[in-house]
Amino acid sequence: MITEEVLRGMFKPRQSPWKTSITKVEPNRLTTRGHLQEDLIGNISFPEMIYLLIKGDMPSENQKKMLESVLVSFCDHGITPPSTQAARLMASAGSPVNACIAGGILAFGQNHAGAIEIAMKTLQESVKLSKMCNRTVNETAESIMTDFRSIGKKIPGYGHRYHTEDPRAKKLIKLAEKYGCYGKHLKLAVKIEEILFDNKGIKMNIDGANAAILSDMGLNWRFGPGIFIIGRVPGILAHVTEEMEIETPFRKMMELDEF
Amino acid sequence: MITEEVLRGMFKPRQSPWKTSITKVEPNRLTTRGHLQEDLIGNISFPEMIYLLIKGDMPSENQKKMLESVLVSFCDHGITPPSTQAARLMASAGSPVNACIAGGILAFGQNHAGAIEIAMKTLQESVKLSKMCNRTVNETAESIMTDFRSIGKKIPGYGHRYHTEDPRAKKLIKLAEKYGCYGKHLKLAVKIEEILFDNKGIKMNIDGANAAILSDMGLNWRFGPGIFIIGRVPGILAHVTEEMEIETPFRKMMELDEF
Amino acid sequence: MITEEVLRGMFKPRQSPWKTSITKVEPNRLTTRGHLQEDLIGNISFPEMIYLLIKGDMPSENQKKMLESVLVSFCDHGITPPSTQAARLMASAGSPVNACIAGGILAFGQNHAGAIEIAMKTLQESVKLSKMCNRTVNETAESIMTDFRSIGKKIPGYGHRYHTEDPRAKKLIKLAEKYGCYGKHLKLAVKIEEILFDNKGIKMNIDGANAAILSDMGLNWRFGPGIFIIGRVPGILAHVTEEMEIETPFRKMMELDEF
Amino acid sequence: MITEEVLRGMFKPRQSPWKTSITKVEPNRLTTRGHLQEDLIGNISFPEMIYLLIKGDMPSENQKKMLESVLVSFCDHGITPPSTQAARLMASAGSPVNACIAGGILAFGQNHAGAIEIAMKTLQESVKLSKMCNRTVNETAESIMTDFRSIGKKIPGYGHRYHTEDPRAKKLIKLAEKYGCYGKHLKLAVKIEEILFDNKGIKMNIDGANAAILSDMGLNWRFGPGIFIIGRVPGILAHVTEEMEIETPFRKMMELDEF
Repeated sequence: MITEEVLRGMFKPRQSPWKTSITKVEPNRLTTRGHLQEDLIGNISFPEMIYLLIKGDMPSENQKKMLESVLVSFCDHGITPPSTQAARLMASAGSPVNACIAGGILAFGQNHAGAIEIAMKTLQESVKLSKMCNRTVNETAESIMTDFRSIGKKIPGYGHRYHTEDPRAKKLIKLAEKYGCYGKHLKLAVKIEEILFDNKGIKMNIDGANAAILSDMGLNWRFGPGIFIIGRVPGILAHVTEEMEIETPFRKMMELDEF
Repeated sequence: MITEEVLRGMFKPRQSPWKTSITKVEPNRLTTRGHLQEDLIGNISFPEMIYLLIKGDMPSENQKKMLESVLVSFCDHGITPPSTQAARLMASAGSPVNACIAGGILAFGQNHAGAIEIAMKTLQESVKLSKMCNRTVNETAESIMTDFRSIGKKIPGYGHRYHTEDPRAKKLIKLAEKYGCYGKHLKLAVKIEEILFDNKGIKMNIDGANAAILSDMGLNWRFGPGIFIIGRVPGILAHVTEEMEIETPFRKMMELDEF
Repeated sequence: MITEEVLRGMFKPRQSPWKTSITKVEPNRLTTRGHLQEDLIGNISFPEMIYLLIKGDMPSENQKKMLESVLVSFCDHGITPPSTQAARLMASAGSPVNACIAGGILAFGQNHAGAIEIAMKTLQESVKLSKMCNRTVNETAESIMTDFRSIGKKIPGYGHRYHTEDPRAKKLIKLAEKYGCYGKHLKLAVKIEEILFDNKGIKMNIDGANAAILSDMGLNWRFGPGIFIIGRVPGILAHVTEEMEIETPFRKMMELDEF
Repeated sequence: MITEEVLRGMFKPRQSPWKTSITKVEPNRLTTRGHLQEDLIGNISFPEMIYLLIKGDMPSENQKKMLESVLVSFCDHGITPPSTQAARLMASAGSPVNACIAGGILAFGQNHAGAIEIAMKTLQESVKLSKMCNRTVNETAESIMTDFRSIGKKIPGYGHRYHTEDPRAKKLIKLAEKYGCYGKHLKLAVKIEEILFDNKGIKMNIDGANAAILSDMGLNWRFGPGIFIIGRVPGILAHVTEEMEIETPFRKMMELDEF
């Protein structure tokens, strides 16, 4: 006979530890953010899909163009970034493509892709605060600079190891104007640049420009490093493949007399 | 005085262990595959940039549209893939976004993203061989099936854990026709599907369709897993962010009575 | 003729970007922390080597035994940790052993291995502060608990998802007494446990015990997660190999009706 | 009323997708390979725990000492390995310790830690085959060398980028004699060395010695890379910590004139 207790146990639903509102999976049917995937494929662009996945709805035409430009701008910086070197080292050691790409991404620490996150967070919190406190853009910019000076850190998004003027930042700001994404965050970022340039000759870099633009597109700072990664993975793939094709495996990176 | 030997030592060039033909980095100037980056940003689409990075030249209009569709099709499969679960486990454990994405990518082993690579390699080698041997599509398809049967493995690109008919494959094949990417590889893949369906009721899945299409676009099989990763990273980012936002940190995934 | 400028360029030393004081590499000669490797192999234990690598000198006999016990204690917790699940998911997807282990380690986020780091940091800073301020152990313990309560966080190192009394913590504390590693940090940790147990019935877990013991051994909190990783990697390796040997590749982890 | 069908559904056991024979987790009780963890902690050495985890039983006294020596021998090779460079690049970029270690491990590709795996597999299969075919050690050694020559590859385990005679290999072979681990696999490895040295002046390296020794200890070749990783992680941890402590964050690794 089935006791009360056993029955209760039986009715205890078998639950998956997982739940999501991104994609519903049913036999022969995949629904992402409310859209059947077969309706999305061929009808929306890749940046639209990216926006849909992370934000939950479709971007406007201007937002779509802006995101496309941002993603293109992150493409590649040659051999110089630690991430690219790390990925090529792994390729040289004979790791498979996915491990090499993962390795490159692991080098996007807080001093690398992390810069975008901190820049976005700083801009977003400052814009909120300055609205609450009725501060001018100039006052807000000065306040940010004082804050970073007091903790002995550089403001993320300005200056570049290899460029005195980052050609990508300039172009991105122009496009932000064109696509109506030149809002409060970019205005603040440009004001900071003005002050930094007057005092130290330092200009905005790609991270600063994109941090401001993504903020003006309404993207939370948490998405910053992720969008950078999406934009940079194709470049890492190109490097990993190049390493596999043109270099001898496990090549010697240094001579002993280099120590 | 400078001896002969010292002079020889001095002239030994100081070489970087790195060289690349992807992006040339000069002060205030970034040239990717021969194009200034500021000319690319805002003027080409993200899929065009991806193609340019990995192939070295620009895609045709049709190739661009096809690649866009392929990338969109890889977007997400809910919670079911090991990669998505792995990435969410890492997010739950409090790892930063880049580590979670890297973790997801590490789960793209040879049984996962690797399927596309093997499918592409099989199709590309078979098409080459069948041309040399003057074999019909049907003979080539039968030969592939015999080969896999003899090693006791399933042909990659057919059948699906959750679908009897993968809705994405069907749509992708239609688009390949539309964009002129329905060549020898897709014909071979469709022929294999016909035989498999007649004998076992098995249909082509997304990996099979994209493996054939990317091959007909002229992409080497080595790029297969990389293109899958580019297409899937946005979905992983969406899952990682969702885990961080809606779940409690380090949540308990199982009860002890589950063992 | 060699101009002044060329000469200056020639004399610019060819420097490696790397330097280290861990191991000196010369042809047929490897010197780690001042010892020839061939003298270390066969003469010191693995935990002694670990201590030598990270601290730069040899541990005392008691420190060696304590570190050995700590490393053994981290061995494995079955299938329950996210890290173990992540590593097995990757093995199931066909990733190579090193990628699976790396994947497991990526799940040691701030809520997992990170707990040891925060626990060590808290204990070490509190002990320093309490000495400066001449506070009793009880006052310091209360102060720590107030601090964590004020930020709405649990004190790391106490309580366990699956155990009301962690059998490993109890044994480790006994060994710390035996090996003379029961110092100020462990006294403080035990005092916190007393208060927590009286108020909420919560006991110290393995992370709390090892955080205190490693601190009393003089190890900086920065080494906490690393030592945990060293101790846990063998367990992950055992799981990865088990997954590869007893499970079918890319096994289906869930049914669709689980959603 | 409960129908037959509903009852059947209810009785369908709620199964975890996970099972393991490594550690049984019960409330307040952890049993690893049949031993209570509190009985293992403080009573067995770390190498014994490693052996117990991966093999399922305890090593003999000699096996324990041999494994200890093997693990110590893998400790560190300065800055030269790609894995160490990759881990330090990640530390420089501001990634947390666990991500840096994972990154280092990802560089243990088939040309790096993979060498041990291939060496172990080759030795184990050759010893088996030579027994079946009644071949002498010399015949087996020649056969292996012919096989690798025919595919145009070097035999893994011989020669070294930086050493003409690897000091670790020599010491390990001596210890194998002392600890009774000088069996068929090491005899074969030494025979190959003799032939290689006579013909090309090439000697056995640490990978070759350890591959043979681990094989003579009865460890399956699948464990090779894992044991190497266990032995090397402490060295990587030392490098990562050193990078964090003595170098400026995100340091510039190259000058533009290096291209």
